[in-house]
Amino acid sequence: MTTETPGAGALLAILRSGSARTRADLVRLTGLARSTVSQRLDALLEQRWITPAGEAISSGGRPATAFAFDAGARVVLAADLGATHARLAVTDLAAEVLAECSHDMPITDGPEHVLGRLAETFERLLQQCGRTLADVCGAGVGLPGPVEHTTGRPANPPIMPGWDGFDVLGWLRTRLGVQALVDNDVNIMALGEHWSAEPAVDNLLFVKVGTGIGSGVISGHRLHRGAQGAAGDIGHAQVASAAGQPCRCGNTGCLEAVAGGAVLAARLTAEGAPARDSRDVVRLVRAGDARAVRVTRQAGRDIGEVLAMLVNFFNPAVLVVGGDMSEAGEHLLAGIREVIYTRSLPLATQHLTIRASGLGDRAGVIGASVMVIEHVLDPVAVDIAASA
Amino acid sequence: MTTETPGAGALLAILRSGSARTRADLVRLTGLARSTVSQRLDALLEQRWITPAGEAISSGGRPATAFAFDAGARVVLAADLGATHARLAVTDLAAEVLAECSHDMPITDGPEHVLGRLAETFERLLQQCGRTLADVCGAGVGLPGPVEHTTGRPANPPIMPGWDGFDVLGWLRTRLGVQALVDNDVNIMALGEHWSAEPAVDNLLFVKVGTGIGSGVISGHRLHRGAQGAAGDIGHAQVASAAGQPCRCGNTGCLEAVAGGAVLAARLTAEGAPARDSRDVVRLVRAGDARAVRVTRQAGRDIGEVLAMLVNFFNPAVLVVGGDMSEAGEHLLAGIREVIYTRSLPLATQHLTIRASGLGDRAGVIGASVMVIEHVLDPVAVDIAASA
Repeated sequence: MTTETPGAGALLAILRSGSARTRADLVRLTGLARSTVSQRLDALLEQRWITPAGEAISSGGRPATAFAFDAGARVVLAADLGATHARLAVTDLAAEVLAECSHDMPITDGPEHVLGRLAETFERLLQQCGRTLADVCGAGVGLPGPVEHTTGRPANPPIMPGWDGFDVLGWLRTRLGVQALVDNDVNIMALGEHWSAEPAVDNLLFVKVGTGIGSGVISGHRLHRGAQGAAGDIGHAQVASAAGQPCRCGNTGCLEAVAGGAVLAARLTAEGAPARDSRDVVRLVRAGDARAVRVTRQAGRDIGEVLAMLVNFFNPAVLVVGGDMSEAGEHLLAGIREVIYTRSLPLATQHLTIRASGLGDRAGVIGASVMVIEHVLDPVAVDIAASA
Repeated sequence: MTTETPGAGALLAILRSGSARTRADLVRLTGLARSTVSQRLDALLEQRWITPAGEAISSGGRPATAFAFDAGARVVLAADLGATHARLAVTDLAAEVLAECSHDMPITDGPEHVLGRLAETFERLLQQCGRTLADVCGAGVGLPGPVEHTTGRPANPPIMPGWDGFDVLGWLRTRLGVQALVDNDVNIMALGEHWSAEPAVDNLLFVKVGTGIGSGVISGHRLHRGAQGAAGDIGHAQVASAAGQPCRCGNTGCLEAVAGGAVLAARLTAEGAPARDSRDVVRLVRAGDARAVRVTRQAGRDIGEVLAMLVNFFNPAVLVVGGDMSEAGEHLLAGIREVIYTRSLPLATQHLTIRASGLGDRAGVIGASVMVIEHVLDPVAVDIAASA
């Protein structure tokens, strides 16, 4: 029912969109009584979501106070934790990065250790931009494995020993006193890419090609998480070229077993071009190593085999390729395009855009921030906070 | 902006949900002025969406008029057109069938002829239930091919000669004077199944196995149509057992080329068990023909190969199998389950329900009706009608 009522949250949404600035505008747009509008604006001012923004000329000629959404009043803590590496940021409520850093942080160190370092780094970043924990309206964390989004607990994450079922939300609330949201890293990358580069697009598919291979799905402007929050898994789809190849999931013939960055690195090492991970593969491709170019192109074709089917099934307007391996230039994309344009139906490809992520390794932290912003500025959440 | 304002449509949604019955309830729930609520109720009464429903005891003890959504005040025309067969119905605004019929109607007869018969049949069905075209608030039509949903025009439908780009909406408006909505048949079947059997489920995948193979996708309670309205196509996914097999789409190795009802019928005929179409295949399976059971089970496995990947990618709570072939009892489902439980990730299958459609061949007409009901009772649409 709450969504039917234009509460404080609905007024905030109107002020954010810019279609109203004054009390009179809001009364006219919503049909609410002037006293109700005033009461809700007071709540929004008290919560610091809005700020007086000078005077506007009202229709009667008398100056009226204008109000504006204040993106700088509160900040968001954002973290994108990968298998071996972490990127952290403090952003404002428009997902603009105010301070950031990135460093090696193996997820295998376990939750207590990793989250401890996360908390310390957040405190340091806050200091850097002259803010305190009191300014924080939430923390968003991306993890490299499946997460039950409602509880924020990792669910049998294959590469995260010690994290299964760990109460990440509770830990961060206790340590930092902030509300947190957790999701898997590819979902937040999809959110970041959609918010930053394609806000007008309804349906977007974000594919991350790094050590592993996964995807994030935007359907009708919203993240499609699926029934168990497990949606977007494409690494364990069967591909012809992987027939019989054993995969870490226990099955054989999975996409990740032939096209993941770790597998490509091992293959190149065996061929005499030493590489430890996907970053090394990219380095070799950029240096013009023919073996690295060849395996990268073939990985693109293998990934394209699965994506060709998903382009038919999901019919996205935009397909974005991100993750470490996407920095291998056009070789990966060329392989992907080759198979999609061969296999997918013309109706699904005629207006399809296939491109590399423009955010690069920042997609995750921006998406983690967007996840928090959309949650705290959701009209229902604002209403609840305003009436507390 | 319109959605932020509780217009007539929002009040109607509240009355439909049953959480308010009187003017006073609505004032309390929405924060609108009593005069505004009265004005909007008048508009809804005039449009016949609601009806006075006796008296309720108000908090002051004085009896107040109660209002209720009137599902019987208006009717919907619904049609599900298949390749060779059509099912038509008149329903009320709760998608309850008031009159229906089904008969052979080859889609290859072309749009003028098929829609002409459609219109005549609708008029006859209206008469049967004592209603007229003046009671109709819309017509919903499902077609066996891709449809650009916003314009209602078929888009390069492979088995519908003469229909490409045909203005179905304009034709029905001219002939019957009603607003129409058109979508492909599998989308409306998914809508019908979701509305009737799984209204609480967020994410549902409906797979139709008939002459061809397609799917309808419910994401977050809404039909996911994709960028060109082409979402749900799974018939042209590559499967291992179809390697090299030519498909009507011009490619080779497509699912439909090995597991579609038409292909199964041809295969059985070649093996000495004559069958013209998927219905004949089902008849043979039901008669216990071992050859028919075997090809049906294998078709289930081939379809399961594609669905195993989609269960990982889409993570539905419920997977419903419908279409003619789903009436072959457990043989098709057993093949599908066999491969999904072998190939999909445990996280995605642990709570997954896989079942045959409970609506059978009525899923399409009910979905066509639901498509219209959701459209005409959408708060914004009601607001526009109420202010006209």
